[in-house]
Amino acid sequence: MAFGSIEGISAGAQFENRQALYDAGVHRTLQAGIVGRQNVGAESVVLSGGYVDDEDFEDVIVYTGDGGQDDKNQQVADQVFEGKNRALLRNHLEEIPVRVVRGASHRSKYSPNAGYRYDGLFRVERCWRERRPHGYLVCRYRLIEIIDEDTGLPQSNEGQHSNEGPAPRTHGRYNRIVRDRDLASRVKDWHGYHCQVCGIRLEVEGGFYAEAAHIRPLGRPHDGPDVAANLLCLCPNHHVAFDNGALFVADDFRLEGWDGNLKSVPRHDIAIEHFRYHRSIWGRG
Amino acid sequence: MAFGSIEGISAGAQFENRQALYDAGVHRTLQAGIVGRQNVGAESVVLSGGYVDDEDFEDVIVYTGDGGQDDKNQQVADQVFEGKNRALLRNHLEEIPVRVVRGASHRSKYSPNAGYRYDGLFRVERCWRERRPHGYLVCRYRLIEIIDEDTGLPQSNEGQHSNEGPAPRTHGRYNRIVRDRDLASRVKDWHGYHCQVCGIRLEVEGGFYAEAAHIRPLGRPHDGPDVAANLLCLCPNHHVAFDNGALFVADDFRLEGWDGNLKSVPRHDIAIEHFRYHRSIWGRG
Repeated sequence: MAFGSIEGISAGAQFENRQALYDAGVHRTLQAGIVGRQNVGAESVVLSGGYVDDEDFEDVIVYTGDGGQDDKNQQVADQVFEGKNRALLRNHLEEIPVRVVRGASHRSKYSPNAGYRYDGLFRVERCWRERRPHGYLVCRYRLIEIIDEDTGLPQSNEGQHSNEGPAPRTHGRYNRIVRDRDLASRVKDWHGYHCQVCGIRLEVEGGFYAEAAHIRPLGRPHDGPDVAANLLCLCPNHHVAFDNGALFVADDFRLEGWDGNLKSVPRHDIAIEHFRYHRSIWGRG
Repeated sequence: MAFGSIEGISAGAQFENRQALYDAGVHRTLQAGIVGRQNVGAESVVLSGGYVDDEDFEDVIVYTGDGGQDDKNQQVADQVFEGKNRALLRNHLEEIPVRVVRGASHRSKYSPNAGYRYDGLFRVERCWRERRPHGYLVCRYRLIEIIDEDTGLPQSNEGQHSNEGPAPRTHGRYNRIVRDRDLASRVKDWHGYHCQVCGIRLEVEGGFYAEAAHIRPLGRPHDGPDVAANLLCLCPNHHVAFDNGALFVADDFRLEGWDGNLKSVPRHDIAIEHFRYHRSIWGRG
């Protein structure tokens, strides 16, 4: 696997066809949309119109996993997080950036007029597996553009520096969702910084530590609201579990992925519709 | 507390004196360096040359806590994470941005020539309490500049938007340390993604999840190396504990803050000097 940007190739570089992309080392396969290894990570993805579930907001892309289609690009089966789909999921869990290429056949106003365009490095901010209008489960990935502030180009040295001595620094730019920190602190206060799943309270120098987790995620395509009814007070471990399909809350607050019920306090009124949304993006009732 | 930027006041705004800063609402006290409330957070800090331990790298500032000085600004006692010092620590734990003001008397090439200059919002990336050359423990804070990409000004709407409907978005810029993701994945593989402290292994959709934690932190002023000998494989909860003064490793791998010893595997050779450094920045042995 060759992660990160390719020396001498800047974001915006144009390629006539898949062979040219292949030869440049940008996307090292002639057919598939994802180049990656199952439990390691994906080095590049191509958007080329093969999946109706792709959504493109320029600096945020909702990318669709691989598979489950017939030879007319109709979805006829569920996708699973195996093979290349699991590879791209590892980018999220390991924070590995992925090269993104847009092709002319990708249905978006951000597509090139012809051929393919390398559009730089993106981070895989979130993954989920959702039932789409066509009736099948699809692996989806929220990709966010990363730009090197100093050069205006993609991060060029990510993962490619010498490790001895101080680590090099760079200016990263990223699309950030503004969230209400006061609100988050207030919700944590209500629970005394105890995790609503396991009851743990982390004590560090200067007080307690917990995280305010959004049930329905902020940002496109989920667009969850930043309100107390959409927040949980969780320890970091259960925040990771909740965001990554290992923990669910039923309508009656019963937990799946942990014994017992979600702990609640009277003044924290959580909207059950957000639990339903959270379950739905993992293909559950 | 009024966190975030002040409407109508951009980074770079000049103020003749402390009274003018006060009147503008930028720093609402006439004497102290930190405006904050102990268990809530700090809204602003001023750099004005009172502490020899301040270090200024422009977009990264190592700020010194309050107290322990005599009337000639000589350090004569240890500082503790109480009062205003604890307030600024909460900014780190709650991810609350802090307004930064540089005064002409601050010894740095980034100081204004006269009076005071508001230099925008910074995040408090890390805190620790370290014994300095003068022999006393000092609370220290690594502050990193945040800039709104769209305007080139500090984030103007952090924490001040309506919460219903989709959360607003902004482009944040930040000073980022490049770390080696391959190396991090390799270290986690060696430990089978089990936490070296508690042995837990988080299982999420698509595999296991753990974090590679630097023992001696990356970046100024610590400048730890990005090598396996300086990494631990930790669960998110123990990563927070380790980075925030609640967990230490002795030379013989005995843990303080958890029962037992750090779990090790033969091929992961950890340099004891990094444990010593980590303990030293918390004023231990």
